[in-house]
Amino acid sequence: MTDLDPADGVRALELDRAHVFHSWSAQGSLTPFVIAGAQGTEVWDFDGTRYLDFSSQLVNTNIGHGHPAVVEAIQRQAAVLPTVAPAHANLTRGEAAARILALAGSDFGKVFFTNGGADANENAIRLARLTTGRDKVLSTYRSYHGNTGAAIVSTGDWRRVPNEYARGHVHFFGPFAYRSEFWSDSPEQESERALHHLERVVQAEGPASIAAILLETVPGTAGVLVPPPGYLAGVRAIADRYGILLVLDEVMAGFGRTGDWFAWKNRDLNPEGIVPDLFTFAKGVNSGYVPAGGVVISESIAHEFDERVFPGGLTYSGHPLAMASIVATIDAMRDEGIIENAARIGRDLLAPGLARLAERHPIIGDVRGLGVFWALDLVTDRESREPVSPSVVGALKAGLLERGLLPFTADNRLHVVPPCTVSDAEVERALEIYDEAFSALS
Amino acid sequence: MTDLDPADGVRALELDRAHVFHSWSAQGSLTPFVIAGAQGTEVWDFDGTRYLDFSSQLVNTNIGHGHPAVVEAIQRQAAVLPTVAPAHANLTRGEAAARILALAGSDFGKVFFTNGGADANENAIRLARLTTGRDKVLSTYRSYHGNTGAAIVSTGDWRRVPNEYARGHVHFFGPFAYRSEFWSDSPEQESERALHHLERVVQAEGPASIAAILLETVPGTAGVLVPPPGYLAGVRAIADRYGILLVLDEVMAGFGRTGDWFAWKNRDLNPEGIVPDLFTFAKGVNSGYVPAGGVVISESIAHEFDERVFPGGLTYSGHPLAMASIVATIDAMRDEGIIENAARIGRDLLAPGLARLAERHPIIGDVRGLGVFWALDLVTDRESREPVSPSVVGALKAGLLERGLLPFTADNRLHVVPPCTVSDAEVERALEIYDEAFSALS
Ligand SMILES: Cc1ncc(COP(=O)(O)O)c(C=O)c1O
Ligand SMILES: Cc1ncc(COP(=O)(O)O)c(C=O)c1O
Repeated sequence: MTDLDPADGVRALELDRAHVFHSWSAQGSLTPFVIAGAQGTEVWDFDGTRYLDFSSQLVNTNIGHGHPAVVEAIQRQAAVLPTVAPAHANLTRGEAAARILALAGSDFGKVFFTNGGADANENAIRLARLTTGRDKVLSTYRSYHGNTGAAIVSTGDWRRVPNEYARGHVHFFGPFAYRSEFWSDSPEQESERALHHLERVVQAEGPASIAAILLETVPGTAGVLVPPPGYLAGVRAIADRYGILLVLDEVMAGFGRTGDWFAWKNRDLNPEGIVPDLFTFAKGVNSGYVPAGGVVISESIAHEFDERVFPGGLTYSGHPLAMASIVATIDAMRDEGIIENAARIGRDLLAPGLARLAERHPIIGDVRGLGVFWALDLVTDRESREPVSPSVVGALKAGLLERGLLPFTADNRLHVVPPCTVSDAEVERALEIYDEAFSALS
Repeated sequence: MTDLDPADGVRALELDRAHVFHSWSAQGSLTPFVIAGAQGTEVWDFDGTRYLDFSSQLVNTNIGHGHPAVVEAIQRQAAVLPTVAPAHANLTRGEAAARILALAGSDFGKVFFTNGGADANENAIRLARLTTGRDKVLSTYRSYHGNTGAAIVSTGDWRRVPNEYARGHVHFFGPFAYRSEFWSDSPEQESERALHHLERVVQAEGPASIAAILLETVPGTAGVLVPPPGYLAGVRAIADRYGILLVLDEVMAGFGRTGDWFAWKNRDLNPEGIVPDLFTFAKGVNSGYVPAGGVVISESIAHEFDERVFPGGLTYSGHPLAMASIVATIDAMRDEGIIENAARIGRDLLAPGLARLAERHPIIGDVRGLGVFWALDLVTDRESREPVSPSVVGALKAGLLERGLLPFTADNRLHVVPPCTVSDAEVERALEIYDEAFSALS
């Protein structure tokens, strides 16, 4: 926090408003929060005011801000070799792939690296379509898989042609017991009915046309929708029954968020131990210190492309600077027990702490989550479960910021998503702030 | 080049072959070149063998390898704040946007940042479709705009809906005098006929359905197809006549490659001084030291989204580490006369040097380019202009590597694309190596 100059904060905001076009927003009325620096669970502005970062930015800084081993790895790699073309081999890339595959287990053969989550899903979908020779991808309405959808079809050269037939996207409803689409009255019934619904969609769309079912293992932005008992295993069974590939999107749920390396490896979420055919990652793999993502590919799908050309790629696939940050992140998360910390924090502090909060504040209709991945579903009324209005969420957000906590909100929800490295004291402090801010609302 | 251990080279290759899935390739028979480190125009392997990098990797290291100011900026920013969510303001992001807009000129209002070229084009296409309320995008067969095409349509939440109608992609032939699709016999006639063809496609598709014409200012991977006189101005006129937006893809052509900051600003390419509505960048903006790209948005299109939500975004939009590398790259390119060097090298050394090479080697059917952006079109016969076979290109590639030059080849072509910082002596040496390798072929 040395050398902070409040004038830089003014300048940062001025330059931003004058020149920067923002995601998912109308540009006219934005007043972005200005971040000057960060360490661990804290961020600060140019006035030196500190905030507890219970957003992990976009749920990506799983290792916390400014982790010294990751910073050092980036600094070292920047000096040695920040960038090479993907066609050339590079030691950091091999080291990163080997580490990810060791965590994924022996069903998996290779990793294809990308710049983030969207292009990870792009290439998982491409692999699924080419492997099955089928077109359609089924995914849930309550999901987010990335913002890309046109560059390859605007491309004119040969790389367009093998991708051009790929147009079929069908959406279905996943399970969500608190706001069921299936008139269920228990998580078990929600699971059973959601599986029935999915199988009916598969049959009605024509199984022979379906390449993949693409699922966030735990839908994140949609509200941390922990799958009910039996759902993941049931989806795997449907996929197998119809020769469909199962692709799990672990962009947000992976690398520690649920208290395990991967959400699909978490026995609380997947007691049956089912295995996807492909899964995607980004965010937590290196906490976003350098843009990176990728697809983990099963042995058998990887071998499909031993003789056959894979028609996908990008300039920065397996970028050494990104790879060095992945290697350092995984090593630090392993050596420092960071995954275990996330599991413990979830079990011992957030689960009971958020339950207590819900007892005190009737606006909290539902508490869902595990590890450091939680959502509070805010309602006007516990009976009707009607979502609170955006103005209430706005007021809550302002109240939290005032009290020194940087929150993550989406629709009518407050997501509680600190880094996996968060300390007990920080969680206690955050729970107090949430409590005060909820009290101030009423 | 200190501390090189040949065993690391072996290990890099082993890990790569075991675990890394490669772009645009069959995986079975790859033997990637292993790069251990790099500086300026040189790369080296773990045995300490040095190579002149006349590929700039994927035509991205415009500032050369290991530029100390860029490396230092990355190292400094890594320690301060590598990542923030795009919604928050950050000083480096504002500084990067301000620099790019100053270079672009007063017609442009804002920059939207992405991770690379594909998602830059994605968001340019999105802006064009939303601004015009039209669907189709016209682009040339001889083009490459990126590998993405599905993530947003697989997404289930509201962010899919405003993007879902966007399906129309139509391709047309751009001008290419050496291999004309229009039976032309001069560059002027090629330009005139290519414009007639484009206007007929516009009319036949229905102008009211066309959002944008998307063009690489100089199609790069397709063979450095320098547009003939009047073509760019003619396309601008057609776009204006039918209310269509003109989007220029400067991912490869921008930031020094043509000897100017942007290819569309280069008076040799655009003597009429036409201005696009949107243009995209990546690669040279920071030489790829950190994955980054973006869209430069005209004032009027930027204002379209003052009140209206822009439905696009990505976790690492305006990533501080990437932004710091952009600021340092632009400052160094300006202060060190790197753009001017690229222009001079092209005019004084590569233009005459490659012409001499063509005189000596009948396999070279055509020499095209400017700045540090050249292609040699290799033919079996100058009369028929029949492209040489892949095996000839393979042999040439091997011959160049043996002689200490890392080449860029595509189809039947050798692209001569050193960094903008290349020295006179390095160009002379490369020309000798090319000469020897061509001689060895016959
Ligand atoms: C589950 C999931 N998939 C994919 C993405 C897209 O990742 P990116 O923003 O890096 O493209 C996100 C981003 O939030 C996500 O949460
Ligand atoms: C002109 C052009 N546009 C777009 C792209 C795609 O960029 P990226 O590989 O960073 O997605 C490229 C890549 O070579 C390109 O040359």
